[in-house]
Amino acid sequence: MAEEEATTTDQQLRLFIERVERMEEEKKGISDDIRDIYSEAKSQGYDVKIMRQIVRLRKLKPEERKEMEMLIETYKAALGIG
Amino acid sequence: MAEEEATTTDQQLRLFIERVERMEEEKKGISDDIRDIYSEAKSQGYDVKIMRQIVRLRKLKPEERKEMEMLIETYKAALGIG
Repeated sequence: MAEEEATTTDQQLRLFIERVERMEEEKKGISDDIRDIYSEAKSQGYDVKIMRQIVRLRKLKPEERKEMEMLIETYKAALGIG
Repeated sequence: MAEEEATTTDQQLRLFIERVERMEEEKKGISDDIRDIYSEAKSQGYDVKIMRQIVRLRKLKPEERKEMEMLIETYKAALGIG
């Protein structure tokens, strides 16, 4: 009986791990799709590095973006970056 | 005419960016699902940190896993970790 219980628990753990693994697979698939979109954009002449920065910028609220840009200017000045 | 071309290009860039953003949203959704699975496992008494290590280990081939374990032992010995 104790053995049967252990088996049920092992089975439950296996199911959790397998659910995570399926989700990780899906996530990987989406990451691949994102890479493909960037490749396609690149083949159309767009700069992927800049596009990634734009995607990051668009996640911010306007005031967050302004604050970030101001801080970058401050840090650049502090380090003597033209 | 030049203006129209610029508009088409701007529109194309916008479409690329929006496709990436939709995919990033989906990815975020899946990450949330993974977090939920771990929460559920935790509420069943499983240790999430160990589960994450197991997921990582299961990605490796047996020989890769053995090599990693050997290296960990070597590094532990080098650093005097019991």
